[in-house]
Amino acid sequence: MQPVRPVAPTSFKRIAVIGASGYGGLQTLRLLQDHPHFEVTFLGGERSAGKRWSELTPFLPLGDDLVVQSPDADAIAAAADAAVFSLPNGLASQLAPQLLQRGVRVVDLSADYRFPSLSQWSATYRQEAAAQQRQDDALCQQAVYGLVEWAGDALAEAKLVGAPGCFPTASLLALMPLLQQGLIEGEGIVIDAKTGTSGGGRAAKEHLLLAEAAESVSPYGVVGHRHTAEIELLASRAAGRPIQLQFTPHLMPMVRGLLATVYGRLRDPGLTAEDLTTVYQVTYRDHPCVEVLPVGTYPATKWVRQTNRAVLSVAVDQRTRQVIVMSAIDNLLKGQAGQAVQCLNVMAGLPQQTGLPLLPFYP
Amino acid sequence: MQPVRPVAPTSFKRIAVIGASGYGGLQTLRLLQDHPHFEVTFLGGERSAGKRWSELTPFLPLGDDLVVQSPDADAIAAAADAAVFSLPNGLASQLAPQLLQRGVRVVDLSADYRFPSLSQWSATYRQEAAAQQRQDDALCQQAVYGLVEWAGDALAEAKLVGAPGCFPTASLLALMPLLQQGLIEGEGIVIDAKTGTSGGGRAAKEHLLLAEAAESVSPYGVVGHRHTAEIELLASRAAGRPIQLQFTPHLMPMVRGLLATVYGRLRDPGLTAEDLTTVYQVTYRDHPCVEVLPVGTYPATKWVRQTNRAVLSVAVDQRTRQVIVMSAIDNLLKGQAGQAVQCLNVMAGLPQQTGLPLLPFYP
Amino acid sequence: MQPVRPVAPTSFKRIAVIGASGYGGLQTLRLLQDHPHFEVTFLGGERSAGKRWSELTPFLPLGDDLVVQSPDADAIAAAADAAVFSLPNGLASQLAPQLLQRGVRVVDLSADYRFPSLSQWSATYRQEAAAQQRQDDALCQQAVYGLVEWAGDALAEAKLVGAPGCFPTASLLALMPLLQQGLIEGEGIVIDAKTGTSGGGRAAKEHLLLAEAAESVSPYGVVGHRHTAEIELLASRAAGRPIQLQFTPHLMPMVRGLLATVYGRLRDPGLTAEDLTTVYQVTYRDHPCVEVLPVGTYPATKWVRQTNRAVLSVAVDQRTRQVIVMSAIDNLLKGQAGQAVQCLNVMAGLPQQTGLPLLPFYP
Amino acid sequence: MQPVRPVAPTSFKRIAVIGASGYGGLQTLRLLQDHPHFEVTFLGGERSAGKRWSELTPFLPLGDDLVVQSPDADAIAAAADAAVFSLPNGLASQLAPQLLQRGVRVVDLSADYRFPSLSQWSATYRQEAAAQQRQDDALCQQAVYGLVEWAGDALAEAKLVGAPGCFPTASLLALMPLLQQGLIEGEGIVIDAKTGTSGGGRAAKEHLLLAEAAESVSPYGVVGHRHTAEIELLASRAAGRPIQLQFTPHLMPMVRGLLATVYGRLRDPGLTAEDLTTVYQVTYRDHPCVEVLPVGTYPATKWVRQTNRAVLSVAVDQRTRQVIVMSAIDNLLKGQAGQAVQCLNVMAGLPQQTGLPLLPFYP
Repeated sequence: MQPVRPVAPTSFKRIAVIGASGYGGLQTLRLLQDHPHFEVTFLGGERSAGKRWSELTPFLPLGDDLVVQSPDADAIAAAADAAVFSLPNGLASQLAPQLLQRGVRVVDLSADYRFPSLSQWSATYRQEAAAQQRQDDALCQQAVYGLVEWAGDALAEAKLVGAPGCFPTASLLALMPLLQQGLIEGEGIVIDAKTGTSGGGRAAKEHLLLAEAAESVSPYGVVGHRHTAEIELLASRAAGRPIQLQFTPHLMPMVRGLLATVYGRLRDPGLTAEDLTTVYQVTYRDHPCVEVLPVGTYPATKWVRQTNRAVLSVAVDQRTRQVIVMSAIDNLLKGQAGQAVQCLNVMAGLPQQTGLPLLPFYP
Repeated sequence: MQPVRPVAPTSFKRIAVIGASGYGGLQTLRLLQDHPHFEVTFLGGERSAGKRWSELTPFLPLGDDLVVQSPDADAIAAAADAAVFSLPNGLASQLAPQLLQRGVRVVDLSADYRFPSLSQWSATYRQEAAAQQRQDDALCQQAVYGLVEWAGDALAEAKLVGAPGCFPTASLLALMPLLQQGLIEGEGIVIDAKTGTSGGGRAAKEHLLLAEAAESVSPYGVVGHRHTAEIELLASRAAGRPIQLQFTPHLMPMVRGLLATVYGRLRDPGLTAEDLTTVYQVTYRDHPCVEVLPVGTYPATKWVRQTNRAVLSVAVDQRTRQVIVMSAIDNLLKGQAGQAVQCLNVMAGLPQQTGLPLLPFYP
Repeated sequence: MQPVRPVAPTSFKRIAVIGASGYGGLQTLRLLQDHPHFEVTFLGGERSAGKRWSELTPFLPLGDDLVVQSPDADAIAAAADAAVFSLPNGLASQLAPQLLQRGVRVVDLSADYRFPSLSQWSATYRQEAAAQQRQDDALCQQAVYGLVEWAGDALAEAKLVGAPGCFPTASLLALMPLLQQGLIEGEGIVIDAKTGTSGGGRAAKEHLLLAEAAESVSPYGVVGHRHTAEIELLASRAAGRPIQLQFTPHLMPMVRGLLATVYGRLRDPGLTAEDLTTVYQVTYRDHPCVEVLPVGTYPATKWVRQTNRAVLSVAVDQRTRQVIVMSAIDNLLKGQAGQAVQCLNVMAGLPQQTGLPLLPFYP
Repeated sequence: MQPVRPVAPTSFKRIAVIGASGYGGLQTLRLLQDHPHFEVTFLGGERSAGKRWSELTPFLPLGDDLVVQSPDADAIAAAADAAVFSLPNGLASQLAPQLLQRGVRVVDLSADYRFPSLSQWSATYRQEAAAQQRQDDALCQQAVYGLVEWAGDALAEAKLVGAPGCFPTASLLALMPLLQQGLIEGEGIVIDAKTGTSGGGRAAKEHLLLAEAAESVSPYGVVGHRHTAEIELLASRAAGRPIQLQFTPHLMPMVRGLLATVYGRLRDPGLTAEDLTTVYQVTYRDHPCVEVLPVGTYPATKWVRQTNRAVLSVAVDQRTRQVIVMSAIDNLLKGQAGQAVQCLNVMAGLPQQTGLPLLPFYP
């Protein structure tokens, strides 16, 4: 039986979803449909503006069959208290300033506000930077990085949130406890990550066709994938010194799910998997969207499929002094839309897990 | 936002799940975990008796971490008001009589109580009949066939429910409106059904290995599959005369989902897909777990994945006078555990869809 | 051990592949790479003209690393004796006449030459007909329909071959023996077909993304799919009278493989599966690319994956008088490129199976 | 066109396959069926002894429809010159000594003869060692480790070959050039490996069911997987000093294919990916089953599916001094049966790639 969920009576309720028909938007809508507090009051999209939701998406009937609208700032501000952006990199920063001026709080799923300065964003997203001529450095500085478990108190008051990508989410949940407590060396960290193809979005691309991607595993973005900078930024902040690490994503023949296998070298050769598991359990004690498994139990991405849960497991090889942290999430929920709703929950004064599925329908 | 769901205040609440670790049991537990009214108070299983749930199933933490118990009738009756059986054919009928005597209502997911007489069951399940020596013909006669949309008033008062299999569920939802209203000929009906491999259960079988079943489609049980009898029974009842039809199941390379493509020949060559779609919409108007799509929109099993929804679409070929009804369900929910919970809802006086997910997390 | 394969010493050898980078072209190149007689001497493609093959396709190194060329008729005629076209519908008919004039024999994988008259083609491919203004009705009449097992003597001398699509291949191999011998009624024939997504080609389309198509089964083109006309054409020819039938394709969550489940009604209720299996075995006795399974053994598409073999099985339900013929092929080989090579073999006077894989690498 | 393949006229031809119905045996039979030199003359199996091959395996018709026989040493020696064993660990060592005494050369796909001493084997395969009481330490010492590219001259004369497992094959092809030439540090090596589920064999196991393994990625055997010892043994031999490394296998939702992503730290920070690619190209110049990709092109397991080819790619991160070597194989061919045939080829004086497919049927 589901316990009755506490709800902050006076917080904001009306949510706009901008970029509704991509996977990020679809998941956000789906989650909000079951949410005990929030209500979707605006559907924004350029290509499908003017169409009724049920025409576009017969498989996901929403309570109110809204018409998709062009994402005009005034219209959004009239309809909504907060907005979730599921837009390509570089586009969020065109709309966010206008909404913030109108008092609409923004959770952005793109990379536009994940870096604390415009120059850092521009260094990583060069093509988009060249195309957009952004001048919102001040907003970059104000924005809160929305990895809820590590965002601290600032998130509750945030006007603008840059929600982390799927790879940084899984990687950082695994890595932060080790770095913050100085348990591993700063060099030699390897993150070998595996993601389902939905991480590549809903736009048609040849390499994401079932015929191409099924029955195959392949690395991509080897050396220099953009998420490296995002992970290193947070890792360095936690460690208190610059961290450079190896991040290698791999495409998996599955729809959704992401596993990061994180390798680091223990400073203290006497630490056991049990010790570290305790550290992780304490770290995430108050965070119901993260579960730390007992020693010797390893996560499968299926265990978190269609949930907002991250499942972690820690192993230690005492011969090599390596610690291996496995971190599984659903790339579209805890790695994207679920995280956005988790952010909204905190921003609205609700328990962070409100309305978020934490249990899988196995298998 | 999720509307507040009405709950009948005085009805039974405590549910036993017998056969908890198979797919039927797992789904039932998962559904009940989110249910606003019911509570799981007994986990029954032979093989895993004595073990704590969290040991057996680290991926599905339940609120109360119950210990699995041997399914003793007294213990079950002490703990629960109703029981869901997820047991192999032939075993339910050993336990059900004892529970019914003790006042426990039973929803059985096996085939044991799907036929209105023991002899009909024995004719179809010969091996099990030979092994079990059942003598509960009276119970077979009392049992209600739990296809909620077609069960009528008897279900609310039922003490014993034989929940239909996944193939009959999808097939009958498609076929019943046509037969009941005499719209198609009684001969030449073809049901070509496609199911994910989870329909074969969780016990390890070579042909259900990923290495065998992935990247392959194959028919099985061609001519004489056991579900044929179950479908014909209900179809004949609806038509008011004996119906014999062709049912061919196919194994699909996917985890869950079932599509029945049903072919029949219209009596009246003038009927259009629009006409028939209206018939279906009227038929299922008060049944929120069934959705009838507009003409020309065809269902994908992904649209109902991990939901208790059936999605139907009707097409007509006026050249050949064939009507084609496509019916998609999740074989483990509307085709199994979701249907059990839907039955329990009706038996408890709750709205039939209470606590059941109806929207997919697409993709 | 592989037997030594007989080769006709004086026949043509040099093959041009036009449209080399799509799936049809890739398969053709792959097959010809292992062929004991033919040699690829021209790679034609518009988009990739000027690029070396190894740049475009690092995963399929060819013996001669040819440069892809714009498909100019003179250049092709200078380099090759015969050409395989793997082009979108409507484009083949622009190039074929020029090549035929220059003495190059053509096997076309598109639909352009599958119909015996331009008007029949235009009635089915209306959009293409409107766009192209074809005037090659004479060629349509001369073209041989390249279903090798049913093409008869004309194929050996053919200058122009319209190779059948994947659905007609599987369907007709199953249906022709029944119709030709008058064993089933002409009405009520149902073909329920299931195909892997590679049948949709290599061009990026949203519904063929892994994220969309995996873990899902869906019908498409219900009532009126273009292959219906092609199947009915050949079926009517075999039956000696007009046949109209129901053809419903379904998209399967797998890369390659196609299963047609064909339902018909026996004229003679006394015929058994054994009788019909004998008919099929006799029919295909001299055709090594077709295998007829013993009664009770049903094909899986995995059994023919990456082979040019069709595997058939016949079942009979004596209660309903239905015959069910199951027909499995690899949609890209026997359903496309393998059939093209099989045609080329016959046209070159070689045994039809020369150079074609007939055994799977299971699993 | 396929070039004519040279064949050593006087070498052995007759091959026994012992353990014919598992995946290793099936692949071996399939490869030998197309082999220009070898012939299968004995099918050995306990469970299926007495049955005709075509009954057991209707999907893989063999030229001679042999009867499976109990693997009696005299019968094998009468029929065959060499034998391939596809048996569970610990069983090969019961049969191999008897065959060797009778002059039959043996290629063993199990781990029994992969270690140069019985004690090393026993330390890694403790359960099997306890069950079997092996006393064939001398054979362990004589056996040649059948990683053809690194086996040296001993393989041609070998009487007994321990063919490497799938993980060691992919890992060692990637790692050996770096270690042999002292290009990386001995510490901090990480092998993150991803395999299709067929690597787990054909015996039914719950975790390898499609319903369990599809749509999921999971690590297993973390810290201490048995293949670690096998990889370290060869790595230490190449490096000339003891190497301890981190090996973590992951189960992928696909039938076949294996990717090892190997991470090491360059000694010389000035080395580029181009430099290392040249080293690899030179190393494998005379080995047609290994292909080294150009810098920036990364392998997909689909590129080697159903081939005996390994495809390698080398990347360098100059910020972190890490080298990343990606190595893709088909786990059942180059990782198992293909390697056995490659060994047989060398043992018979044939070119190593004789009869082995090296090009994929993409997709």
